[in-house]
Amino acid sequence: MVFEILKDRILKDGKCFDGGVLKVDRFINHQMDPYLMKQISIEFIRRFADLKVNKIVTVEASGIAPAVMLGYQMELPVVFAKKQQPSTMSDMYVAEATSFTKKCDYTMVISKEFLTKEDHVLFIDDFLAYGSTGKGAIDLCRQAGATIEGMGFIIEKAFQNGRQILEQAGAARIESLAIIESLEGGQIRFAR
Amino acid sequence: MVFEILKDRILKDGKCFDGGVLKVDRFINHQMDPYLMKQISIEFIRRFADLKVNKIVTVEASGIAPAVMLGYQMELPVVFAKKQQPSTMSDMYVAEATSFTKKCDYTMVISKEFLTKEDHVLFIDDFLAYGSTGKGAIDLCRQAGATIEGMGFIIEKAFQNGRQILEQAGAARIESLAIIESLEGGQIRFAR
Repeated sequence: MVFEILKDRILKDGKCFDGGVLKVDRFINHQMDPYLMKQISIEFIRRFADLKVNKIVTVEASGIAPAVMLGYQMELPVVFAKKQQPSTMSDMYVAEATSFTKKCDYTMVISKEFLTKEDHVLFIDDFLAYGSTGKGAIDLCRQAGATIEGMGFIIEKAFQNGRQILEQAGAARIESLAIIESLEGGQIRFAR
Repeated sequence: MVFEILKDRILKDGKCFDGGVLKVDRFINHQMDPYLMKQISIEFIRRFADLKVNKIVTVEASGIAPAVMLGYQMELPVVFAKKQQPSTMSDMYVAEATSFTKKCDYTMVISKEFLTKEDHVLFIDDFLAYGSTGKGAIDLCRQAGATIEGMGFIIEKAFQNGRQILEQAGAARIESLAIIESLEGGQIRFAR
C-alpha cells in the first residue's frame, strides 16, 4: 500500500517546522526517490482509473517528477506550468498564486499551444496545503476551456483547508495519497 | 538511434529565435514527452556505461524530467539544485549562474545533506549553451568535495562554447545527445 509506504517515509524522513510546514526534501522535493515516484504514479493510476484523461499538467518544480513518471506510465504528454515567462513565450494563459513555503506571490503561465478545449487534464502536485497552486491550475484550465478531470497530490495537509478551496473553485475529484490531519507540537498525525 | 530521433524531433518541433535561441517547448521543457525522456535516459546510460555513479544531480526545472527518468532506470537518488532558497533550508552550498533564455542571474543551492564528499555525481540538464548552469553545478560539487564523474546534456549548442567553459572548470567527461553547430538564418545545422 502506497499510503503505508509514504506514511513510514514521512515519519522517518519528514521534519516539522513552525507554522504547519512539513519538510520532505529527503525524498520528494529536493532529493527525490525515483522508485517511490513510480509507486506514487501507479497509485494515482488506480485512484483515477475511471477517468478519461489525455494530458498530465503540473507546476514547476516539485510537481515535475511525479507528473513525468505518471505520464510515462500512462503514455501521456506532461505540461508543467512555468513560474516565470520565458523570453520565447508570447501567447499564454496566466494565473496568480501564492507559495506557502516561499512566502511570495507568483504567476503561473502555460502556453496556449499546450492547453486547449480538447484537453481532459489530470493535475498532479506534491502538496495540497492552502490550495493556491491548484486553484491557479483550475484557473489556467478554465481560461483554455480545458476540463480538469482530477487533481492528485502526494501529501495533503488537511488542516490548511486547500481541499475546500479547490472544491469551491470547481474541482470535481481530488485524491491525496497521504493526508495529514495535524502537525501540532511537531507530531505528524495522519488521517484514517 | 536517439540522435536520429532527437534530430527529427528538433527539426519538426523546434523553433529558432534571434540570438541563438532554440525553443523545444513542445517536447522537452514545457510540454514534455515522457517516452522520449525514457529513450534519452537509456542513451545517457550507454554513454556513461563505464562510470561509477551513485547520484544524479540536476537543476530545476527543465532538468528534472530527464534526471528523474535516468535515476529511475539506474535506481539512483536524484537531487535537483534549487534556484531559490526555501524557508526551511539553512545549511547549503550556493553557486551563481546566469540564465541564457531568461537573461538574468540566479543562485543555485543544494542542501549540504544531499551532496557530500562520498558522492560520485552524474549531472544532467536539457541544454548546454554557454555553460553557466553546468559551471554552477561543478562549483557546488567542489564545495561539497563531491566528484562529478560526467555531465550529460540533451542538446548542445556548440557555437555558444559551453563545452570549453566546462572543460576549463574541470569537467572530465561531457556527453550531449544532439549537437547543434549553427542556428544561423533560422537553419538548424547538426554536428557530425
